[in-house]
Amino acid sequence: MNTVVIKESQGTLGARMSAMGDAARGAAAGLRTASTDTKNKALAAAAQAIRGRKEQILAANARDMEAAASRGMTSAMMDRLKLDDGRIEAMAKGLEDIAALPDPVGKELARWTQPNGLDIARVATPIGVIGIIYESRPNVTADAGALCMKSGNAVILRGGSESVHSSHAIHAALVEGIESAGLPAAAIQLVPTTDRAAVGMMLEGLGGTVDMIIPRGGKSLVARVQAEARVPVLAHLEGICHSYVHAGADLEKARAIVVNAKMRRTGICGATETLLIDRCIAETHLAPILSDLSKAGCEIRGDKDVVAVYPSAQLATEDDWHSEYLDSIISVRIVDGVDDAVRHIATYGSQHTECIVTEDKEAAEQFMDALDSAIVMHNVSTQFADGGEFGMGAEIGIGTGKLHARGPVGVEQLTTFKYLVRGSGQTRP
Amino acid sequence: MNTVVIKESQGTLGARMSAMGDAARGAAAGLRTASTDTKNKALAAAAQAIRGRKEQILAANARDMEAAASRGMTSAMMDRLKLDDGRIEAMAKGLEDIAALPDPVGKELARWTQPNGLDIARVATPIGVIGIIYESRPNVTADAGALCMKSGNAVILRGGSESVHSSHAIHAALVEGIESAGLPAAAIQLVPTTDRAAVGMMLEGLGGTVDMIIPRGGKSLVARVQAEARVPVLAHLEGICHSYVHAGADLEKARAIVVNAKMRRTGICGATETLLIDRCIAETHLAPILSDLSKAGCEIRGDKDVVAVYPSAQLATEDDWHSEYLDSIISVRIVDGVDDAVRHIATYGSQHTECIVTEDKEAAEQFMDALDSAIVMHNVSTQFADGGEFGMGAEIGIGTGKLHARGPVGVEQLTTFKYLVRGSGQTRP
Repeated sequence: MNTVVIKESQGTLGARMSAMGDAARGAAAGLRTASTDTKNKALAAAAQAIRGRKEQILAANARDMEAAASRGMTSAMMDRLKLDDGRIEAMAKGLEDIAALPDPVGKELARWTQPNGLDIARVATPIGVIGIIYESRPNVTADAGALCMKSGNAVILRGGSESVHSSHAIHAALVEGIESAGLPAAAIQLVPTTDRAAVGMMLEGLGGTVDMIIPRGGKSLVARVQAEARVPVLAHLEGICHSYVHAGADLEKARAIVVNAKMRRTGICGATETLLIDRCIAETHLAPILSDLSKAGCEIRGDKDVVAVYPSAQLATEDDWHSEYLDSIISVRIVDGVDDAVRHIATYGSQHTECIVTEDKEAAEQFMDALDSAIVMHNVSTQFADGGEFGMGAEIGIGTGKLHARGPVGVEQLTTFKYLVRGSGQTRP
Repeated sequence: MNTVVIKESQGTLGARMSAMGDAARGAAAGLRTASTDTKNKALAAAAQAIRGRKEQILAANARDMEAAASRGMTSAMMDRLKLDDGRIEAMAKGLEDIAALPDPVGKELARWTQPNGLDIARVATPIGVIGIIYESRPNVTADAGALCMKSGNAVILRGGSESVHSSHAIHAALVEGIESAGLPAAAIQLVPTTDRAAVGMMLEGLGGTVDMIIPRGGKSLVARVQAEARVPVLAHLEGICHSYVHAGADLEKARAIVVNAKMRRTGICGATETLLIDRCIAETHLAPILSDLSKAGCEIRGDKDVVAVYPSAQLATEDDWHSEYLDSIISVRIVDGVDDAVRHIATYGSQHTECIVTEDKEAAEQFMDALDSAIVMHNVSTQFADGGEFGMGAEIGIGTGKLHARGPVGVEQLTTFKYLVRGSGQTRP
């Protein structure tokens, strides 16, 4: 099998990774002042290059699929890895969509004049060099590269070993687009080795050249990044999202929202994992909701009060409340009002997205106010926790940390800012 | 000598630090929803308690001064440590000034409606638990505690060992104020030991209870924090600030700005450390500017071109360009236009604050656009790099990192945000 996996001594790898960091820093200096038009041209050309290189990308993907099959990868994972005509077109279209977004760089975020005449403006600027470590679908190579390009950042991508050939083929198309617009190829670099030591080097910041690391992947990847990183991390942790059906809920609305929140797509971070429902409506509301979920193919794991009302539910264990299933399973608990629901979520949640279903506006405000999650919702499916659905265009994920950016991370969230202070000779007394 | 320094086994210290983290987390939950009025009452009462406990605070400070003298502390350091009636009143007044600031919590930062009717609002919320590690003046105890209180965060303060008695006396006053307003004492905690192991525990996050660490102090403290922290750090690194006198500068403006930027106060991070001046005006502008600086008591260290024009200057070494003197010393270099000045700053600067002095607006915009510093100025003294001077009220420092907050960190910068999404039963297609 033809492979691009390169293993080498730490010394040589270190030198190559360090050179990537330097190249990224150099590219970032040019990207910082690149015009919107140039960046958009690069993205449009990259989209065309992806279409033009479809056969090479499919061939590379076939090699990844073959290797995955021989390693016994699950069919769900194989499906994530697989590219076809439709997915390649979607990837190209994704780049064009990002080109169509407003340029976040240079936007005046605030401006005011001090009594002494100082004119102070806060203006959005690129962050610089972003390292993205991911392990999921090969299209992340294109999406993440394009989001960083649009926001004026150079990016060093480190994809998963299972998609290495696909990622390289996609990356080659991106570079073709970038260069045709006159931007440096180093604006989007892909780490050319699957050696895990390369990740460690990125986490150490490649000699001070990396400004931020974004991990995209499972719990163990994010945990490693958080433990080892010596540079700021924009973390995308798990989404243990809750839907809470309050005593004041409209039953039909609750049924539609809960089944959508859980079952529309079970593998996304905004999928509801736990259903909370008020005790006083358990007799009337619980069975119809759980029956809808069952019919949609969802396994129900409830506390003993739930099992009493809905005997076909399995008994949940403590682990269930901590679980991000990303699957057709839901944990269900009966609670005693808003405070009790908030307490459960504060104890077991991951501060991602939670929703209250109720017609009682006061209860809704109480719930939304009390929770410290990135996104709190009222009468909406938690599956709306998405940059596109927020009107922010494409996103790199949902930030679950509290600093810099929470919630959907799109092009605006990939910028920082600087202050421009204009005076006329003022000295400070 | 009566001492509050407690040394104990790691196990016991670990248990106590961990209990502080839990207490802070508990207090943060209450502070998050505390009213503006309650927080302001606590701050006003704390100001009164500081005034009322003046004698105890002065006595505690005398013990610190005595210990410092016996350890042979420099007189500059002794001056930083010393409290007197005026400084205690200034500290109390500082708390009242923070009470008078607008409450940043709950502020609607953005709000829009999606085509499907979703009403999305981004609202400022407290971060949670902030750990502040400092080594400077004892008044940081009051300032940092008050800024966190106003922004709804619980704080764990770890002051320097040299000011331990003063900090404890000030902290006791803060707690008196907090409790009188009905807020939990754990809203502002002071680590009761000078054991350096306690810092390590804070940097590890006290069992997931600390959301952010802010180091305030010298280079070695910040370096230790950045190397060891397992939680996000809002770094306040050194300020190697530059004033650049461009060919188009007005000489009188340049003289006034440069002498103020360097000499108004040499010990603050916004003080200019390096002067750059265009070659074509060196003959006319350099001598008057350097002569002003000399007369003000500043030592001049120039490159060989500077020494040629101004022979009383010492010859600068490579180290000088990297130095944050925080003293009456300036390094001076002759450059060849805006690009060369930008290149010098990008190589040696710390991305804090830089200023161009010129009447040429185009050159000013070019300079401000090209630099990637937190604050870029035109015709202003760099000493204006200050939260108060920006109209933001008190600040905890000037952030030099790129994430979350750059530039002055005041109460607004000590908040994060969450999204409130209000719907009417929408499910995602």
